[in-house]
Amino acid sequence: MRDVSIIGVGQTPVAEHWDRSIGDLAVEAIAAARQDAGVDRVDALFVGNMLSGELAGQENLATLVADDAALLPIEALKIEAACASGGAALRAAYLAVGSGVHDYALVVGVEKMTDHLTDGVTSALALAADADYEAAHGISFAALNALLMRRYMHEHGARHEDFAAFSVNAHANAALNPRAMYRQPITVEDFVRSPVVADPINILDSAGICDGAAALLVAPTSETRVRARHAPVRIAASATATDTLGLAERKDPLVWQAVADSARLAYAQARLKPRDIDLFELHDAFTIVSVLTLEACGFADRGSALKLAAEGRIGRTGDIPIGTLGGLKGRGHPVGASGAYQVVETVLQLRGEAGPAQVRGATIGMAQSVGGSGSVAVTHILQV
Amino acid sequence: MRDVSIIGVGQTPVAEHWDRSIGDLAVEAIAAARQDAGVDRVDALFVGNMLSGELAGQENLATLVADDAALLPIEALKIEAACASGGAALRAAYLAVGSGVHDYALVVGVEKMTDHLTDGVTSALALAADADYEAAHGISFAALNALLMRRYMHEHGARHEDFAAFSVNAHANAALNPRAMYRQPITVEDFVRSPVVADPINILDSAGICDGAAALLVAPTSETRVRARHAPVRIAASATATDTLGLAERKDPLVWQAVADSARLAYAQARLKPRDIDLFELHDAFTIVSVLTLEACGFADRGSALKLAAEGRIGRTGDIPIGTLGGLKGRGHPVGASGAYQVVETVLQLRGEAGPAQVRGATIGMAQSVGGSGSVAVTHILQV
Repeated sequence: MRDVSIIGVGQTPVAEHWDRSIGDLAVEAIAAARQDAGVDRVDALFVGNMLSGELAGQENLATLVADDAALLPIEALKIEAACASGGAALRAAYLAVGSGVHDYALVVGVEKMTDHLTDGVTSALALAADADYEAAHGISFAALNALLMRRYMHEHGARHEDFAAFSVNAHANAALNPRAMYRQPITVEDFVRSPVVADPINILDSAGICDGAAALLVAPTSETRVRARHAPVRIAASATATDTLGLAERKDPLVWQAVADSARLAYAQARLKPRDIDLFELHDAFTIVSVLTLEACGFADRGSALKLAAEGRIGRTGDIPIGTLGGLKGRGHPVGASGAYQVVETVLQLRGEAGPAQVRGATIGMAQSVGGSGSVAVTHILQV
Repeated sequence: MRDVSIIGVGQTPVAEHWDRSIGDLAVEAIAAARQDAGVDRVDALFVGNMLSGELAGQENLATLVADDAALLPIEALKIEAACASGGAALRAAYLAVGSGVHDYALVVGVEKMTDHLTDGVTSALALAADADYEAAHGISFAALNALLMRRYMHEHGARHEDFAAFSVNAHANAALNPRAMYRQPITVEDFVRSPVVADPINILDSAGICDGAAALLVAPTSETRVRARHAPVRIAASATATDTLGLAERKDPLVWQAVADSARLAYAQARLKPRDIDLFELHDAFTIVSVLTLEACGFADRGSALKLAAEGRIGRTGDIPIGTLGGLKGRGHPVGASGAYQVVETVLQLRGEAGPAQVRGATIGMAQSVGGSGSVAVTHILQV
């Protein structure tokens, strides 16, 4: 297949956009990405979204966005893989452009969560869990992750406050990102005193509910060298893998197999190893997710990811910077949009356009979106 | 890109499956398709579904199906394009296999509508309309199509009973399909006396609410000639197009532009004309949809599709047989699954395996799925 690159990126601020519709958000991000690329042509649109039907009263969302963004009559499809939907939409665009069927494909990840009360959102998010064996019993996503965190603390003799470094890092990075939702730095003491959501998970372990849209224009690498405004950021690898939907069905709940599998496939495609990755936009919906992800992706041995954080190695000047523009925790986690934000931020870093949050000398970045309790993972490795 | 073929098909009966979950239905169709192909390997899964979140309490559906069908850890994505989701999932698989990234991709269209009362289903279906300008005002899909039908009757001096031939044809064909939901033949008199749903649309104008799953295994044509049990059915064309989400935004509501555009693109890709098509599995969710589709796709001039039906040309021995195994009206319309059923049925016809409903000598078939009020259309042309 053809080599594929990202040639334009755009995003709305992540916030509670009470005055904006889901279409408005998508249109703003798309316009920014097209402007950034300096290319007018668009052949297809892939929309990453999880909950437009439940929270915005709209299925057929890809057609709505194509219509609102004045892109009719192009092909438009919505891709859903729970919280990994944004990454999955890029995956679909990568296949469409790589195949030769389309030359310029837009990806937009968009989610509008704040038109509903938090109760409704918590129930909607539980749709990513196993309906019969998890959600029907009333367990929320925070509670599922709390089970994982408690088990991790038990197996590895960790204390809850050992997880603070992930949240502190996310807020420190978000403070440097003008589009992030939570721009206030926090301390370990703030973390420890934060109200409990689902014991042991507290508010500062958890990414917030919010709205946002992020867009990408992808094209064949060969063509972009001629026409686009920016040097292309190559998609060196793209991979998806799945694991059991229910946590209880896994041999070992602390092994995130889909995350490990999709990373392994991506490393193989890009012919890279974990040590080659300059920054990693991982799916830190909860601090425990960061820990399990770093261990699954080869950045830390089992039981040792907390040490990675304690030693400051996940910071912007560390050897494996994560969530460099705030991550899901600091930037905010508009679920179906987050995967697109992660890739937008990786592109900004690789272009050297991340402002005060810039990771110096970064040429290879990995962005990984996870859906459910690690039941689906989409990994992209980008390279300049 | 590589030439792509369908090498295996499977389906559940379309019915009210009160004792089966959405996962059960998908697994049954997938097992049948794999058995039919005689090929064990599956590299990826594309799930077409519209309403699993709203009606089955399950997003992250592709992961659920991969899990239930024992396909972990393969790539699995859900594709949504309202009632065109089944066709859109085939489109995504076509791109994935055509690109060279995957060799054997499964497509399953699945919908479970009967766990909810009809009221809930009508509201859920309205999510395919424009949330702000249509659904918010309480208009249902039957009502939107009733507006179109009334307008058509006004412009072309047609009577409601002129549409009966479409419903009579669908039921006559469904009577020959053991997997169809409505297997009783009907008369014009039955049609005329059928209770009104949204004036002038009556029950027999409308496809029923039901459950079902249909699956396809696709692979590169070159490879399938060697390994598969059946001769491959080539995907000669695959195309998607969009139109405004809201009916009121169109210059002319009786021109189904997305349907016309996707058919035009498909004809161009396959280098065929309408007269080359031996059978057409069209999206007859309402009789008026069949009429507008036949006119948009070049089988009848504007205002003349009713004549096509009156002259018996849409029957199995006519020059453009439609809904040959019952169509959405007769087989049933499990919305996100229907597009996959249409393709399964086209494959059976082209292989000469349609039993008493066989269209003799058919070598080229077209299957077209439509979402919303003609706002998105996915067209595939298959050839043996």
